[in-house]
Amino acid sequence: MKYSPLLSELISALTCLPGVGNKSAQRMAFSLLERNRDGALKLSAVLHNAMEHIRHCERCRTFTEEPVCEICRHPQRNESGLLCIVESPQDVLAIEQTSSYQGMYFVLMGHLSPIDGVGPADIGLDELEARLKKEPVEEVILATNPTVEGEATAHYISQLCDSMNISATRIAHGVPVGGELEYIDGNTLTHAFSGRRKL
Amino acid sequence: MKYSPLLSELISALTCLPGVGNKSAQRMAFSLLERNRDGALKLSAVLHNAMEHIRHCERCRTFTEEPVCEICRHPQRNESGLLCIVESPQDVLAIEQTSSYQGMYFVLMGHLSPIDGVGPADIGLDELEARLKKEPVEEVILATNPTVEGEATAHYISQLCDSMNISATRIAHGVPVGGELEYIDGNTLTHAFSGRRKL
Ligand SMILES: [Zn+2]
Ligand SMILES: [Zn+2]
Repeated sequence: MKYSPLLSELISALTCLPGVGNKSAQRMAFSLLERNRDGALKLSAVLHNAMEHIRHCERCRTFTEEPVCEICRHPQRNESGLLCIVESPQDVLAIEQTSSYQGMYFVLMGHLSPIDGVGPADIGLDELEARLKKEPVEEVILATNPTVEGEATAHYISQLCDSMNISATRIAHGVPVGGELEYIDGNTLTHAFSGRRKL
Repeated sequence: MKYSPLLSELISALTCLPGVGNKSAQRMAFSLLERNRDGALKLSAVLHNAMEHIRHCERCRTFTEEPVCEICRHPQRNESGLLCIVESPQDVLAIEQTSSYQGMYFVLMGHLSPIDGVGPADIGLDELEARLKKEPVEEVILATNPTVEGEATAHYISQLCDSMNISATRIAHGVPVGGELEYIDGNTLTHAFSGRRKL
């Protein structure tokens, strides 16, 4: 004997969530059925809506349900001449929460990783190059994670900038090596931005 | 700046899941958007279906999308004269996986807890009493958890059985005091069933 077909299906479907195994999925299913059917119905509707409508921003590649995201549409930011390169949308949020940066972003949605077959085109560097040719960017700020892959990605992009005579800087001290950008406190990030140096 | 409205809504909706805070919800949202939109759409559909259709079995109170669950419809089990009382559907599954019990169940969906305002009617004891009056039950097996509340609930039901001249037994050794039934291995549960004693 197992649970009823629909209940088994629910438990199985919940394991699509990262970090959720069969036992956690069981607890989630029973908890929702017993105590929060409204919340579950709301989650069902939002999940559907989000998966159908959230795409990548045409300019910066971050997740958004509009063709171009709010930051990319911001007039003053467009005139700043600053373009900050990050690995993920979470990194954009972390930087925005410091209020210390008022430029544009480009979100790689990953980093170079030849072992996993992730090359320049997979992280949008074709689009980045086209954008750098078209837009008056004065400085590219490389805010990839201070990991081996993040550093390699920053190095690759700095060479691309060199070849186009665009200044490339790397965010600096305060970011512990081996750490992940999205977990660093705002103060440390602010210092890292102000201490950036030319590559 | 925050995430886009729909992305913020998705992150917030995911926190309805037990044990999922804002940070986990962010990770889930990004993981689904980046790597598993099909899984998320499937989860959305199953969640809706489950919340709309899964109700309590009319006889044993477990979760099922049918009026009466599969176990309650089983002819041999109906003739067994045995009725096992458990706190949750997970407990039914744990017992079924031992294959050592072939009777019926009654699922309290909780336990007596005066402090939290959970009285006899809240755990279906009115229905249980009506069922004991109507059906030829020879033995009620009390398999509530060996916690303070579980023991108090077992005691309360055993008195109900006494007043109706129905034999009530309590599952016995092997179940560690203070533990939770659903985490106990099948062998231990089998011993607990065979070693049950009259209250
Ligand atoms: Zn954008
Ligand atoms: Zn049933």
